[in-house]
Amino acid sequence: MEHRDWIMEELKRLGRSLGFIYAPFEEIENRLSRIRTAMKKAETEALLIVEKMDLYYLSGMTQDGLLFVPLDGKPLLIIKRELERAKVESPLDNVVPLTSVREIPDLIKKHWAELPQTLGMELDLLPVKDYFRYQELFPAAKIVDASPILREVRKIKSPFEIDLMKKAGEIGRKVYQEGKRILREGMTEIEFGGLLVAAAKENGDEGLLRVRSLNYEAYSWHVLSGITGGIVSQSDSPMGGLGLSPAFPVGASRKVMKANEPILVDFGTCYHGYQVDETRMFSIGKMKQKFMDAYQACKEIHDAVLDETRPGADCETLFKMTIPLAEKLGYKDSYLGPPGLQTRFIAHGIGLELNELPFLAQGQRYPLEERMTFSMEPKIVFPGEGSVGIENTVLVTRNGCEILTPVEQEIFEI
Amino acid sequence: MEHRDWIMEELKRLGRSLGFIYAPFEEIENRLSRIRTAMKKAETEALLIVEKMDLYYLSGMTQDGLLFVPLDGKPLLIIKRELERAKVESPLDNVVPLTSVREIPDLIKKHWAELPQTLGMELDLLPVKDYFRYQELFPAAKIVDASPILREVRKIKSPFEIDLMKKAGEIGRKVYQEGKRILREGMTEIEFGGLLVAAAKENGDEGLLRVRSLNYEAYSWHVLSGITGGIVSQSDSPMGGLGLSPAFPVGASRKVMKANEPILVDFGTCYHGYQVDETRMFSIGKMKQKFMDAYQACKEIHDAVLDETRPGADCETLFKMTIPLAEKLGYKDSYLGPPGLQTRFIAHGIGLELNELPFLAQGQRYPLEERMTFSMEPKIVFPGEGSVGIENTVLVTRNGCEILTPVEQEIFEI
Repeated sequence: MEHRDWIMEELKRLGRSLGFIYAPFEEIENRLSRIRTAMKKAETEALLIVEKMDLYYLSGMTQDGLLFVPLDGKPLLIIKRELERAKVESPLDNVVPLTSVREIPDLIKKHWAELPQTLGMELDLLPVKDYFRYQELFPAAKIVDASPILREVRKIKSPFEIDLMKKAGEIGRKVYQEGKRILREGMTEIEFGGLLVAAAKENGDEGLLRVRSLNYEAYSWHVLSGITGGIVSQSDSPMGGLGLSPAFPVGASRKVMKANEPILVDFGTCYHGYQVDETRMFSIGKMKQKFMDAYQACKEIHDAVLDETRPGADCETLFKMTIPLAEKLGYKDSYLGPPGLQTRFIAHGIGLELNELPFLAQGQRYPLEERMTFSMEPKIVFPGEGSVGIENTVLVTRNGCEILTPVEQEIFEI
Repeated sequence: MEHRDWIMEELKRLGRSLGFIYAPFEEIENRLSRIRTAMKKAETEALLIVEKMDLYYLSGMTQDGLLFVPLDGKPLLIIKRELERAKVESPLDNVVPLTSVREIPDLIKKHWAELPQTLGMELDLLPVKDYFRYQELFPAAKIVDASPILREVRKIKSPFEIDLMKKAGEIGRKVYQEGKRILREGMTEIEFGGLLVAAAKENGDEGLLRVRSLNYEAYSWHVLSGITGGIVSQSDSPMGGLGLSPAFPVGASRKVMKANEPILVDFGTCYHGYQVDETRMFSIGKMKQKFMDAYQACKEIHDAVLDETRPGADCETLFKMTIPLAEKLGYKDSYLGPPGLQTRFIAHGIGLELNELPFLAQGQRYPLEERMTFSMEPKIVFPGEGSVGIENTVLVTRNGCEILTPVEQEIFEI
């Protein structure tokens, strides 16, 4: 049997039997329809999508390729590798092979009869060298930034997407419960982090956390204990941890975890590309009262924001209301980071990437909308001593909100 | 004690006590001197480095920032977050804070008295949006692509770098030995992959594999068994595996591993940012003779290339010599992938990224040089049945080569 015949038949069967959920045609059609509305408003005649998560969002697959989306016609999925898998994994009809980038204009002309005058691409991520190449390939086209359109459309999740995020949340719940079973005095942070990764994978986590950025990397092994919880790093977060080396200066370190220290575990899980992010506290024996009190304060701030979370609530206002509250609770200088390094956000949007819209943050003056999802993480940092916090991934519902990360909100004390 | 005083003192102590190796001043000076030689040749007056691994290579740290490297003066390390850590982790003298991108030209003028006319940046990765911003900030400068310079200089490893790669190789050895202890019939590929990740972390692996690319992701949990070993995916590799979902279509899947199947484990480890990549075969009970024979053929090809590996050997020639050899051994249609999807490389350069120079591949007409490092991976794929292969990371020495991945080259049969 020829490889190509074999792969089409086998992949469908194998994929389904091994847990692959393929995005239905209607789901992708609905996303494309919303993209077209946004394109019309932005006067963008066509998009050429190259970034992996945008490609997944609009085609249902992440094989190596590009997606051409005209305002007035069917999309064309152009695949470098692997064509058969793209055909199985995407519900789109027009899927063609590509052997050289030079062929792209001809493939588009063949499909759409002409070439676009305005071509939207992801200029927030597209490398300059590739941009020059596309300018040569489309000399008559004005290449404009399509990333605002994509971010706007992706910020509202469909029921299909929300269901995948809930499944990621269910995996996260199991990871934290396993964590309680695994944690031992004398383990290093990274050893614990590694075992959490293994537990996550066993329960269906897909492993990588994706961020829309050139340099920003996210690590799921974000285990900080005592002194390392007070260390800030490259990431725009209240605490980064020491990490493992100057090449990986964020997350778990080789520090041995001791009794009575606050152990902060910020773990993201991912299912079919959809992520949830959550933080819980662990301790071996009781934490010092100081940390227990600070954790309660984080929880109070967390609950206060949730009480105000509903469509129409202003994102900056939700962030700003937490500042006087943290101050009233006695944490003016330790809320969201050590003095001088305090961050200016309390929540980041989440879905296929960890830095989607909305941000509950300074300067973010727009309202929450139904079916937005964000991870909210009030944290308190004591340099030299440790840090505490709570984080949940939240769905904005018609009248309020729902937590997608169903882990118990107690301190996990062993 | 103020946070900033505390962090400088504590970080030095903590980092050293928890295994951080800081690049010595002479190491960074030597790299900068080689970069300046290449800049002179390319007539590039100054570089502005933004990509994380280039930044690490030339500064010794990966905090969030940029490095300005003039041809005739000292480099300036410009740090967004976190300044104190940058000062501790980099041996460079001139480290300044940055609060807004707008300040960059003034900081450079203050340091270097003028602004460059030709500014080299990493145009192979720099996003278009950032490029437009830098053009505004440096209106008189011609921004040119510095990535060829960086790739050229980084392709020759220093003794300091080689030592870190050897340490990564030592971690890999422990991971494979643990793998033999962990593997059980009835485990899924991803469960095994997760436990290998945990074993790697416990032994000092840093976890993420880095690739110089917009979309290309590498997974260390590359466990393929039987049928999934015959599946190709988005990656330019002989076999991709099924993966976990259309969002993660490469690497381990939820397939249960059975007795007598070929189980291919392609695992990369990383120490202080330096990676080694290796592949070994596992089996539960004996593999079928067909796979044992194919493995021996891979090993024969591997050894034949190593016999010819020395400074001066042409990279394309080394690749091309393997084609008739594979054919002679009876694997014309299965060598380096299934028919129609065969790859055209047998080795990729490796170091801080998985796709460095040199490539032993079609069209790569340049000689090997002393202290280059590459991962060589002859593989044989039988669609519908499975795949086998071997991979080692290799250092080019004065007269030949040395393997940096000291795992036994037998099949790991349990």
